[in-house]
Amino acid sequence: MSDQWFYENFDLTGSAFGLRVTRKLDEVQSPFQKIEIWETTDWGNLMVIDGATMVTTRDNFFYHEMMAHAVLYTHADPKDVVIIGGGDCGTLREVLRHPGVQNAVQCDIDEQVTRMAEKYFPELCESNNDPRATVMFDDGIAYMKNAAPESIDVIIVDSTDPVGPAEGLFNQAFFETCHRALRPGGLLVQQSESPLALVGLIRDLRGAMRDAGFVDFKTLPFPQPCYPTGWWSCTIASKEARDLDAFREADAAAKPFDTNYYTAGIHKGALATPPMLVRALAE
Amino acid sequence: MSDQWFYENFDLTGSAFGLRVTRKLDEVQSPFQKIEIWETTDWGNLMVIDGATMVTTRDNFFYHEMMAHAVLYTHADPKDVVIIGGGDCGTLREVLRHPGVQNAVQCDIDEQVTRMAEKYFPELCESNNDPRATVMFDDGIAYMKNAAPESIDVIIVDSTDPVGPAEGLFNQAFFETCHRALRPGGLLVQQSESPLALVGLIRDLRGAMRDAGFVDFKTLPFPQPCYPTGWWSCTIASKEARDLDAFREADAAAKPFDTNYYTAGIHKGALATPPMLVRALAE
Repeated sequence: MSDQWFYENFDLTGSAFGLRVTRKLDEVQSPFQKIEIWETTDWGNLMVIDGATMVTTRDNFFYHEMMAHAVLYTHADPKDVVIIGGGDCGTLREVLRHPGVQNAVQCDIDEQVTRMAEKYFPELCESNNDPRATVMFDDGIAYMKNAAPESIDVIIVDSTDPVGPAEGLFNQAFFETCHRALRPGGLLVQQSESPLALVGLIRDLRGAMRDAGFVDFKTLPFPQPCYPTGWWSCTIASKEARDLDAFREADAAAKPFDTNYYTAGIHKGALATPPMLVRALAE
Repeated sequence: MSDQWFYENFDLTGSAFGLRVTRKLDEVQSPFQKIEIWETTDWGNLMVIDGATMVTTRDNFFYHEMMAHAVLYTHADPKDVVIIGGGDCGTLREVLRHPGVQNAVQCDIDEQVTRMAEKYFPELCESNNDPRATVMFDDGIAYMKNAAPESIDVIIVDSTDPVGPAEGLFNQAFFETCHRALRPGGLLVQQSESPLALVGLIRDLRGAMRDAGFVDFKTLPFPQPCYPTGWWSCTIASKEARDLDAFREADAAAKPFDTNYYTAGIHKGALATPPMLVRALAE
């Protein structure tokens, strides 16, 4: 067994995560970023983008299930879904498990992320040929700017951290285009970093969403071992005033597909915001 | 800002955790183990025992609150509580927040852990002089062997990993002494490692508890950034048959003290076992 370790030091949180690796399987410099694939001893394959851990075979289910199912079961009847980012295709796969979804567009700027996922995370890409899926490679900011008004039910922003290519996916201008593109009852969800160590970012994100016209907000924490602090979150924002603690609980309890993490009970649990986060997000 | 990092490589999980540190504040070799204290840039102080991260100022609340409040609100009326291990005194502090608790004994084998905690984590030790508290330094295995039958309501095993000094706190012989010492309605809770990467250990632990006479079991996951995978658990075992999903929810919702993580809602959420854990624990 190798004693080689891959470490990622997170400057913002003052913490690090590491995995024991056996070898580098691949590396490509795309027009946007450097993508590396490592083989680990215990976590399957690992995708690293510009030095940041993105996905492992073993623990990506937390993130992909929470990014997809929590918002989809919060929306009354999601038919048209757009994923901005999400190039590893894991969120798309989870979205397409919902029989009511009629169209799911995945728009990631970097085709190489998807090519690497197809090769090293084929299970995440198993729904890419679903007739309801459109996998495109384009600028997500431009895509939302050009989207027809009131044409989308749920927008999932499955982005990297708010530096580099994804920086423009965390500001008011982008969220305004999302707000316009959503139908009445529409919901936006954004991955929103660590609720322990990056609460300032969550607060800023919610502020930018509010300034863009979104009305109600809910931040749902969940475990994500390979991300800073191992505790992550997504933030749901609603186009109109509504109670985001209410979701289609009966439908979630009777979901016609298997999961590893998400259940109706887990969803309810994630709605129970811990006091430290309530205080930190107080406006 | 320093660029010095403390890393802990977890052999069993193939993952690592690290913190950015500025300097080592202290180090002592006790008769049982080596204890180091580091100052970090973002996590307050860090206690390391035999190379394993034990406590940081910033994130210990997850563990201490879940180890104390979940089991205490599951018991009908806990008056006499024994903590085996727990030398940093954080669990003791949380236990003593419950007005109904009349006696709380903390029995850790290593006095030096408590001496270091008093110096570098004084907030965790703020209840050590509570008249209801007994802080003793002795062998927890012997303590339970000598405990009067049916004299304790709740036993909290707040131990290090099942290697070294704590190895004897994870087996049937120890749990038999706990079972005998518990009153009718009594509950045992044990820290039970990562529900993602150390499920075999949880299964073995529950097996040993069952062989010792305990009847029902519930494993509650919670975030714990500084422990392997950042996702941790405690396992509650009952002396007699009962539904461990039932707890004093109204009391928990009206708890007369502040917390950072634990609430009645968080407790309910932790009872919603994720499907991957249900499958892994299937007997």
